[in-house]
Amino acid sequence: MKAAIYNGPYAIELGERPDPTIQEPSDAVVRVVLGCVCGSDLWYYRGDSPHAPGPIGHEFIGVIDEVGADVRTVTAGDLVVAPFTFCDGTCANCTAGWPSNCLHGGSFGNHGIDGGQGEAVRAPFADATLVKVPGSGYSDETMLSLVSLSDVMCTGHHAAVSAGVKRGDVAAVVGDGAVGLCAVIAARRLGAERIISLSRNPRRQELARAFGATDVLAARGQEAIETVLELTGGMGVDAALECVGTGESMSTAFGIARVGSVIGAIGAPHGVEVPIDTVIFRNIGLRGGVSPVRRYIPELLTDVLYGAINPGRVFDFTTDLNGIVEAYTAMNERRAIKSLLRIGTA
Amino acid sequence: MKAAIYNGPYAIELGERPDPTIQEPSDAVVRVVLGCVCGSDLWYYRGDSPHAPGPIGHEFIGVIDEVGADVRTVTAGDLVVAPFTFCDGTCANCTAGWPSNCLHGGSFGNHGIDGGQGEAVRAPFADATLVKVPGSGYSDETMLSLVSLSDVMCTGHHAAVSAGVKRGDVAAVVGDGAVGLCAVIAARRLGAERIISLSRNPRRQELARAFGATDVLAARGQEAIETVLELTGGMGVDAALECVGTGESMSTAFGIARVGSVIGAIGAPHGVEVPIDTVIFRNIGLRGGVSPVRRYIPELLTDVLYGAINPGRVFDFTTDLNGIVEAYTAMNERRAIKSLLRIGTA
Repeated sequence: MKAAIYNGPYAIELGERPDPTIQEPSDAVVRVVLGCVCGSDLWYYRGDSPHAPGPIGHEFIGVIDEVGADVRTVTAGDLVVAPFTFCDGTCANCTAGWPSNCLHGGSFGNHGIDGGQGEAVRAPFADATLVKVPGSGYSDETMLSLVSLSDVMCTGHHAAVSAGVKRGDVAAVVGDGAVGLCAVIAARRLGAERIISLSRNPRRQELARAFGATDVLAARGQEAIETVLELTGGMGVDAALECVGTGESMSTAFGIARVGSVIGAIGAPHGVEVPIDTVIFRNIGLRGGVSPVRRYIPELLTDVLYGAINPGRVFDFTTDLNGIVEAYTAMNERRAIKSLLRIGTA
Repeated sequence: MKAAIYNGPYAIELGERPDPTIQEPSDAVVRVVLGCVCGSDLWYYRGDSPHAPGPIGHEFIGVIDEVGADVRTVTAGDLVVAPFTFCDGTCANCTAGWPSNCLHGGSFGNHGIDGGQGEAVRAPFADATLVKVPGSGYSDETMLSLVSLSDVMCTGHHAAVSAGVKRGDVAAVVGDGAVGLCAVIAARRLGAERIISLSRNPRRQELARAFGATDVLAARGQEAIETVLELTGGMGVDAALECVGTGESMSTAFGIARVGSVIGAIGAPHGVEVPIDTVIFRNIGLRGGVSPVRRYIPELLTDVLYGAINPGRVFDFTTDLNGIVEAYTAMNERRAIKSLLRIGTA
């Protein structure tokens, strides 16, 4: 089969991989319908994070091709959403609600495990990992929102849940990447009344507003902090959602967070220092991390199928596996918010 | 009146201060009955933190001597507990539940405001700040527990609340100071089933057990982490309570915290670095800070008066204002867990 292969920084190519097969009775093989490129893929693309050479891509939806003898919840022909990690569903972390920290799990598209930027994937622990999409014949718009549930929509949701967004809150989202934009959707969905999006890119600003941002600020750093404090009567926001992962974005989040609030942080950290004095003397907490996507998919799937949320709008560049290099470069050069890969048919 | 005066590191003396008087109609003047020395007093005593020269001490109970014209909830002769900060009760932080971050508040015993290590104190915003103790004629044991509500018991409670301790949890308390010991009480009170206390001092170990610790570990650093992981089947604890504030204690807390848990931290930070990769990749949160003591006093006061908790047992050195220097040195040399000052009569 055809699959994107990582050979090192700035060296991604379309290559050949053996067709995946059932290896364990709990496996399923999924033919990928839609895959995409994640903002976190850019870290290894640029050489800023390590990544094993080989197949890549951790976000996909697809159709079950074959299941192992023990699989009960999905069967050949089912449309499924894959979270970006597989999980056994039975370990202490899974049962506590942290499937992305499964003791026996792992990430799709890393360490030689086939990923969502290829034609097919072996999904371990298929019952625990994959979520069946009920019904069929979904619009292209819905399909795009479904693939966003693999990671970005659930990750934005994790930022909002971690920050404890509740009805009537003033929330702010630091970062206008696909996850930051999904965090706007999530904050609105959880009842935030005012949502301040920090974005300086006109297309992203527009999408932030479409997703529910009531205020969009182009300012950054100290200027952003001052403006948000002005907008909130000097108090800061009830929920600051940190969706970047850099030192500056974390400083901004702590600078705009209200006394007693919790920062919901999901950005993979690069050069972040937590201002512990602010934590202690302003009682500002920090929660978040790798989203427990598998836990969140069912509730968000319902909202997608009812059309209550439309996170698939973050895709603004579309190609297929032949365009894999361009899919990465468009995002790396910030020409695209998020690149979609049309790979197979549902 | 007589009051302890701070003249700089290692230079505390008993001096004279003008008798406090009503300055605002919302003031009360309190004759101090019991005061004490806080672990955080040692930071400026040693010169590790700045502190204005002048009166000191932020923990006390006392009897109302006089109230201003606007004061409604307390009156002359009432026994009251003072939180370590005064607060107006009406600002945005107070109404949100963060009285120690009151926009118009401040700390007793700093910046020239009389403190609990003296014969009398002017308490601003008396209605919002002071908590009346119902009844009279309490035993000495109860009186000691009442003064612990000024700070240490409520601060230990804040660690437990911040970590979200709940029924059935495995909790661990890093630190065996008075606050760490009170955190054991708090964890047990909130329902923790197993409480691991990290302490190597025999007297403190004994008190930790008396307060509800089920396991006491003398190990520190990496050895402590490994032992706690062993005790918890490799998973770590549901709630790690960081009650020291040093780099090592915070590392220990992050090392023993279970995936998805929240570290409750109340130690004034000195050389702390938050391991952001652990926050993000293990979904371990961090909450806590300066305890909103005034919010917690009423519920804990009830438990003290019913004898359900007995935090006053942390006092193991008793003197009066004439012994103020020895009260500090006994704690500084770790001969005492916490020094009590008998100042007036109830």
